[in-house]
Amino acid sequence: MTDLARQHCQPRKGPEHALDRTTIDDLLGQLPGWSLAADGKAIVKDFKFDDFHRTLGFINAVGFMANHEDHHPDIDAGYGHCHLLWSTHDVGGLSLNDFICAARVEALLAR
Amino acid sequence: MTDLARQHCQPRKGPEHALDRTTIDDLLGQLPGWSLAADGKAIVKDFKFDDFHRTLGFINAVGFMANHEDHHPDIDAGYGHCHLLWSTHDVGGLSLNDFICAARVEALLAR
Repeated sequence: MTDLARQHCQPRKGPEHALDRTTIDDLLGQLPGWSLAADGKAIVKDFKFDDFHRTLGFINAVGFMANHEDHHPDIDAGYGHCHLLWSTHDVGGLSLNDFICAARVEALLAR
Repeated sequence: MTDLARQHCQPRKGPEHALDRTTIDDLLGQLPGWSLAADGKAIVKDFKFDDFHRTLGFINAVGFMANHEDHHPDIDAGYGHCHLLWSTHDVGGLSLNDFICAARVEALLAR
C-alpha cells in the first residue's frame, strides 16, 4: 500500500491501461477492505464514522485528494457512513489510478 | 418555498409526525424538481454541476446546513452530480423536517 500511496495518477486513457484480473487481485491484496464491484469494473469500500461531521470531513479530505489527482470517485454517504467507488471511465474498467487513489484514501485514515 | 425555507427543523419523532400523502403532494408542489421516492418514504432530487469542485462545494453547503438543522440527507455524488435524499427515520417516512431541508437546499441555489 505504501508504494501505491506514493504514486500519483497519470493520464491513463484507452484499453491498454485497463488492468487484467491477475493484476487487480494482486493490487486488492494491498488494500484491506476494498473489493471488486459486481461488474468487475470498479473497486469499492464502505467506511463508518461516528457522526455526520466526521463523515463530511472524510468526504472533504477524499475530495481534496481527488481534485489534486484529477481522478474522482463516486461517493454514497449518509449520517455515519461513506461508500467510495473508484473506476476509470476512460478505460472502461480499472486502471492503476483507481488503486493509487484507494491507497491514498487508506493513507488518510492510517494511524 | 420561502416559508418552508424560513422554518427550522424540530424534533419530530413518532408516527404522529409522519405526513400524509395529501400534505406531501402539497409540499412537493412548492419544491420544483423534488419527487417522492419509489417507496414513498423519502423525497429526492438530482443536481448537476460543471465539475467536481462545484459538486464538493454543494455537498459542503448542504452538509453545513444539515448539521445546523441536525437533520441529515443521504448523498450520492460523482464528478458533476449530486443526488440528495431526505427522509425521517424516526417517523418511518416523511416529516416536515425533510421539506424544510429541501427548501433550504433550494435557497442555497436560488439566484
